[in-house]
Amino acid sequence: MISIPSNITALTPYKPGQTPEETARLYGISDVVKLASNENPLGASPLALQAVNSLSGSAYSLYPDGGLALRESLAEQFGTNVENVICHSGSDALIHLAHRTFVTPSDTLVSARGTFIGFQVAASLSGAEIIYTSLTGDYRFDAEALVNAVTPKTKVLYIANINNPTGTYLTADELTYILDRTPETTLVILDEAYFEYSLYIADDYPDGMALRRPNTLILRTFSKCYGLAGLRVGYGIGDSGVIAAMLKAKLPFEPNTAGQAAAKAALRDKEFLQKTVELNARGLKLFRRTIEEANLYAPVSAGNFVMLDCGNSETAERVFHSLLRKGFITRPLAGGFALPNCIRVNTGTDEQNERFCSALRETAAEIPELARVRQ
Amino acid sequence: MISIPSNITALTPYKPGQTPEETARLYGISDVVKLASNENPLGASPLALQAVNSLSGSAYSLYPDGGLALRESLAEQFGTNVENVICHSGSDALIHLAHRTFVTPSDTLVSARGTFIGFQVAASLSGAEIIYTSLTGDYRFDAEALVNAVTPKTKVLYIANINNPTGTYLTADELTYILDRTPETTLVILDEAYFEYSLYIADDYPDGMALRRPNTLILRTFSKCYGLAGLRVGYGIGDSGVIAAMLKAKLPFEPNTAGQAAAKAALRDKEFLQKTVELNARGLKLFRRTIEEANLYAPVSAGNFVMLDCGNSETAERVFHSLLRKGFITRPLAGGFALPNCIRVNTGTDEQNERFCSALRETAAEIPELARVRQ
Repeated sequence: MISIPSNITALTPYKPGQTPEETARLYGISDVVKLASNENPLGASPLALQAVNSLSGSAYSLYPDGGLALRESLAEQFGTNVENVICHSGSDALIHLAHRTFVTPSDTLVSARGTFIGFQVAASLSGAEIIYTSLTGDYRFDAEALVNAVTPKTKVLYIANINNPTGTYLTADELTYILDRTPETTLVILDEAYFEYSLYIADDYPDGMALRRPNTLILRTFSKCYGLAGLRVGYGIGDSGVIAAMLKAKLPFEPNTAGQAAAKAALRDKEFLQKTVELNARGLKLFRRTIEEANLYAPVSAGNFVMLDCGNSETAERVFHSLLRKGFITRPLAGGFALPNCIRVNTGTDEQNERFCSALRETAAEIPELARVRQ
Repeated sequence: MISIPSNITALTPYKPGQTPEETARLYGISDVVKLASNENPLGASPLALQAVNSLSGSAYSLYPDGGLALRESLAEQFGTNVENVICHSGSDALIHLAHRTFVTPSDTLVSARGTFIGFQVAASLSGAEIIYTSLTGDYRFDAEALVNAVTPKTKVLYIANINNPTGTYLTADELTYILDRTPETTLVILDEAYFEYSLYIADDYPDGMALRRPNTLILRTFSKCYGLAGLRVGYGIGDSGVIAAMLKAKLPFEPNTAGQAAAKAALRDKEFLQKTVELNARGLKLFRRTIEEANLYAPVSAGNFVMLDCGNSETAERVFHSLLRKGFITRPLAGGFALPNCIRVNTGTDEQNERFCSALRETAAEIPELARVRQ
């Protein structure tokens, strides 16, 4: 028997949600819509798809170059140098890599309970002590609590802005407050996976690129607004010293050839980005109106999803199953998400959003206590 | 400044070799052939390419399932269960993952100096002590030295069989000798990335699947014989407890959608595999004859490459540049490879192999000491 360190044993293996096919079979319904993984309902960027489909077999037989051409495109887009950019298979991979690169078991790490699971796994793997502050009453990162938790021993402060799964965000003032008070020896991982969605939605949402310090590592992704979750491409922008250290520890070839080609083309696909962001803004508006009219509670979201607070875990489970019976897969937030009273649902196409809101109204009528969560 | 642990600082960042385009420009020659990365000269498996090109944009916009369908296909192929199979973005990623999962800084790791760089990086990242035994005089893993180096503290014994960059391998008897004497608390990573090439070449080369123990993790890849290096898909076969622990620590989505689809199709492409293996066998035979006729020394290889011993690092560099001027990029093995007296060259198409052998004969004539390395 190979002994397994306790920080590994304690981890829960990732379980993908139920698929639409399984749900359809289990509930005897024909048209099941999955709104559980914050995926892009418009599919992939057409320019990205075209770029992948034009790759030849000989391109696939060669080792990739670690995303150099993509790094160059991103450097140009953000007015920085290629030495400040790193690409990998998803921003999740970059969170893991940052921990592998900088964190030793004697460090401490700080974030909020109720944030992205990818951080929680990467942090656990490092063997370092993790200090989780509480979210505020309206499910936001608590700037003051974070600042108080950070000490000179803190190697990483992880901030998901927009936060997944709550949809909430720190304002420019709050983020600046934190950055001003974080020691320069602490790496601030500012995960902006949902950045692009904030457009039209959240005027006080800050662009991390403008606030970046030498100890800030900004992460973004092609999985969401560019519709490339399946191709696994994320990127990081940071100080050249931070990036150089990460490149030393990084697997040399990722993202793969298909991912890099797609991402590079997607960056030029302003039309698809615009359509995605506008569709989401319409969806969020409809979700918000439905939630308010039914007296439900969901914190204001700037992402492509909202989190519905069901008051307690039992009601959350009933809501989840009620929506499932109506053909909608949402994401329960028990387990690793650490928000067992809540479920998360992303926006879909206009037609899916309309139908989902009808389903939600029916569910709210079936489960009256849902309307009394914040009253 | 973010402090960087010493095991990271000590790493050399990966540097991809010179591209054919750069070489052509630098040397003013038109037709440059890269035989430096053990890539498949036939390109990718046609069935794999077809599978990728039939994926839709909506397939790319969804999160992958961690390669479940591919794991099922592999389990079927090897007569084992899906619980014994793990897939990731290249077998390199699985080496890193195994270290991240099982190794703590107080463990020790054992392998041979002059083995795959991916192990060396993963091992360094773990912070554990690494004990490297020497290769034998003919550049083979030294079974007895490895057995002597392994102690109850050894968490990982890494064996590349076929070894990269030497091309050498342990016989079935030697491998059994090692496995019999390794404590069951030591994970034996048996890296068989070049397994398929041994067909027709090495009768005494062992199939690790037949010798597998509960503490053996066998790694193979789609990068080589299936020509999918660019798509980053490798797999591991091992005890279900070992695989389950690794799945807990693994990034949940890899390999990506394109990689998984390609690999699953490639598994069925027996024709491409056969063509690849036969082409390589012809190439190796030609390389061997050329090497022997010119009185050069290269250990017998069962992979898709040979390693030429140039006697000393200065001669190795001259040989590398001489071949470069003749239009062939080979791989110098100084630096991380730890074999500075040697260069590695993979087989190409029949026509490339003929031309390379002519070039090698010319180089041998230019550098007469090359013929005196083992005399």
